[in-house]
Amino acid sequence: MKTLITNATVLTMNPEYEVFEKGFILFENDRILAVGPTEEQPSAGYDHMLDGKNAIAMPGMVNTHTHIGMIPFRSLGDDTPDRLRRFLFPLEKACMTKDLAYHSGKYAIAEMQLAGVTTFMDMYYFEDELAQATDEMKARAILGETVIDFATCDTTEAHGGLAYAEIFIPKWLGHNLITPAIAPHAPNTNSPQALRRAADIAEKYGVPLTLHLSEMDYEIRHFQEKYGKTPVAFLNDLSILNKRLIAAHCIHVTPEDITLLQQNEVAVAHCIGANTKSAKGVAPVKAMLEAGIRVGLGTDGPSSGNTLDLFTQMRMFANFHKTHLQDRGAFPAREIVRLATMGGAEVLGLADKIGSLEPGKKADIVLVETESANMFPIFDPYAVLVYSANAGNVSEVFINGAPIVKDKRLVAQNLNALRTALASEMQEFTKQAKANEKKPVL
Amino acid sequence: MKTLITNATVLTMNPEYEVFEKGFILFENDRILAVGPTEEQPSAGYDHMLDGKNAIAMPGMVNTHTHIGMIPFRSLGDDTPDRLRRFLFPLEKACMTKDLAYHSGKYAIAEMQLAGVTTFMDMYYFEDELAQATDEMKARAILGETVIDFATCDTTEAHGGLAYAEIFIPKWLGHNLITPAIAPHAPNTNSPQALRRAADIAEKYGVPLTLHLSEMDYEIRHFQEKYGKTPVAFLNDLSILNKRLIAAHCIHVTPEDITLLQQNEVAVAHCIGANTKSAKGVAPVKAMLEAGIRVGLGTDGPSSGNTLDLFTQMRMFANFHKTHLQDRGAFPAREIVRLATMGGAEVLGLADKIGSLEPGKKADIVLVETESANMFPIFDPYAVLVYSANAGNVSEVFINGAPIVKDKRLVAQNLNALRTALASEMQEFTKQAKANEKKPVL
Repeated sequence: MKTLITNATVLTMNPEYEVFEKGFILFENDRILAVGPTEEQPSAGYDHMLDGKNAIAMPGMVNTHTHIGMIPFRSLGDDTPDRLRRFLFPLEKACMTKDLAYHSGKYAIAEMQLAGVTTFMDMYYFEDELAQATDEMKARAILGETVIDFATCDTTEAHGGLAYAEIFIPKWLGHNLITPAIAPHAPNTNSPQALRRAADIAEKYGVPLTLHLSEMDYEIRHFQEKYGKTPVAFLNDLSILNKRLIAAHCIHVTPEDITLLQQNEVAVAHCIGANTKSAKGVAPVKAMLEAGIRVGLGTDGPSSGNTLDLFTQMRMFANFHKTHLQDRGAFPAREIVRLATMGGAEVLGLADKIGSLEPGKKADIVLVETESANMFPIFDPYAVLVYSANAGNVSEVFINGAPIVKDKRLVAQNLNALRTALASEMQEFTKQAKANEKKPVL
Repeated sequence: MKTLITNATVLTMNPEYEVFEKGFILFENDRILAVGPTEEQPSAGYDHMLDGKNAIAMPGMVNTHTHIGMIPFRSLGDDTPDRLRRFLFPLEKACMTKDLAYHSGKYAIAEMQLAGVTTFMDMYYFEDELAQATDEMKARAILGETVIDFATCDTTEAHGGLAYAEIFIPKWLGHNLITPAIAPHAPNTNSPQALRRAADIAEKYGVPLTLHLSEMDYEIRHFQEKYGKTPVAFLNDLSILNKRLIAAHCIHVTPEDITLLQQNEVAVAHCIGANTKSAKGVAPVKAMLEAGIRVGLGTDGPSSGNTLDLFTQMRMFANFHKTHLQDRGAFPAREIVRLATMGGAEVLGLADKIGSLEPGKKADIVLVETESANMFPIFDPYAVLVYSANAGNVSEVFINGAPIVKDKRLVAQNLNALRTALASEMQEFTKQAKANEKKPVL
């Protein structure tokens, strides 16, 4: 089936940053056939036409780091210093189940889709259930099973994620939209042996590896005290830095770390909103990009970043990096839109498939309406996306050619039903969470 | 007429931060009669009932600093270093007219109302037309006519705003919702004599005075080189610091400046989004609040801050101040919601009328729906407002008891018509703006 999207400002995000102020997109099934100005628009030969109504058409956004199983934790203890020990670890251990992860996953994906995120990389537990959720929601994703040095909600022993991954990865390999992966939690929460084995598993199946890296100040201190090196140098000595690795955060990296990341072709998932909400700092993204490192944007999980849309991240990115660099001209808006689209695609190793609106690419397409009060006037559509738009402005979303969001509503899913199912699974979790809120601060 | 709002989580923002998880609000005409838990809700004796559908009810938000005439400039040259000289000054001089300011004003107010801002303080030209616009939109506002040391779009001579204000202020004094004011642009863009005269005019009519203060690095250098003091100390020596003064920005203030501001009861309009987008820095708000200075949030104009909602500002405030203070526990969400409501009311000298939902206060009420994907779950309604909500979640707005927004739409105005009228007035502006875009960077 051929679909024509017409009457839109098309941001192709191709290498020339080509923009068609009055443009069209033509796609057949999952594949973009043509993009161009209205004058070149085909007058027939398509099955379906969508009037863009002056929307901004952009490639589907790519969220390079999140934890979709964690919707239940959102707005719980945001500003408490002992949050991890008071809420996250105990509740995860006591209340996170297959069913809760699955329903959280579906809800989180719905939220991302309504916000124009068409591809994401996840790191959590019960990834088999999350893959099921992703499949049902028709999302594009890389899903990494967590490996950590204690028994968790989905394993009975430390580093149980390694064995889990050996079943999970082959099961989902070859799926049309889903790439299974393995995700050691962080260098300081895994033994060197477990880190090495995780890397071997990624190599064996040819899948991505992701972990949190140089995120915590105590992580940096730990490696300095124990090994006299940075976490990045430690991973380098373990031969774990390579092109498969997507390192989330990388806040506290040194210039030498940046060189190591670049030389080994490691990609970085930059989560500015979550990093600064938790007062961890601002990763040196300008230096990373100048070194030639692939960088994309990530929301982090709903408990850390709260929203799962990239508009929040783009605006945060602009304000934090301009202020950090003391340069209002740093990172013009179109470079930030690039990070949210093509940059993310490069990070996830999917740049041949997604990230731009070009013939031959997959039809992952987002329309951002321009009828709301915040969307006028438009001298620069990139600036409007970065500085004015919010998730509520996304009106239409296609993933792999399938209509996912239409007129700001999910096409094949009912948000209210997804929420009711999740809320119903959350009863025990909510009870225990409220009990933990009443405990004295540690 | 008595109206009952029922079935809402009511954040009163009273001194005890009282919250009614299942609560009601009863108001008669412009005045709140009662707020409380559902059990105490009256079962009769009201004319109209609004089902809150589990929304979060909060006091109308207060935008303490903006320029509502500047919608035409939005998304124009955001990331160009020479923006002021290339776009703002020349276009203001050549193309800003009474009619353009008026239509921009109406549009900007509509945008604020749809985002839950019920009160704002403006600083621009043609304030008489902007007062007309404010009156028609039924908004609550303080409107300050700009005074600056060159001829502008609404005066033919330097400091012409002084004479303008002498006509404008008495004309609007005594209006139910509008307070006229005077607004010298900044200490470095006015002669000391003009600053003094502006302060005298404010004193004469008993109205507020507002200006940009300690915003620019070159402003600081100017006063250091010319007078050997800070702009704050300079104004103190001119006897201009007093309780009437609302100082916008105050980014580059010293501890001594903070003491001067506190001793003279000056209030501060903090515009974190605009300040950091332009890489100017982060004002020391924690120190100001600890000193006892009244602080509120401001969006700045639509060319500087882009959006006119306070959700963007609250989220930016959290992330920037936590990161700046290296403390994730600094400024818990409810303190930030306070800045956006009661804090702003205090800054504008309206704390006896607005800023909280308490019996006797004016019925400026906002309902934020909790049905959208980003609004679940809710363990802490303050955290949801600060970290998750966006302007698109505002569903109902009352100002002075009048219904302004219902089901996310303006009640008495048509947004599309407001935009069409503004776009029609913008034709010459747009032509010249596009010509200026093509000039080489200065």
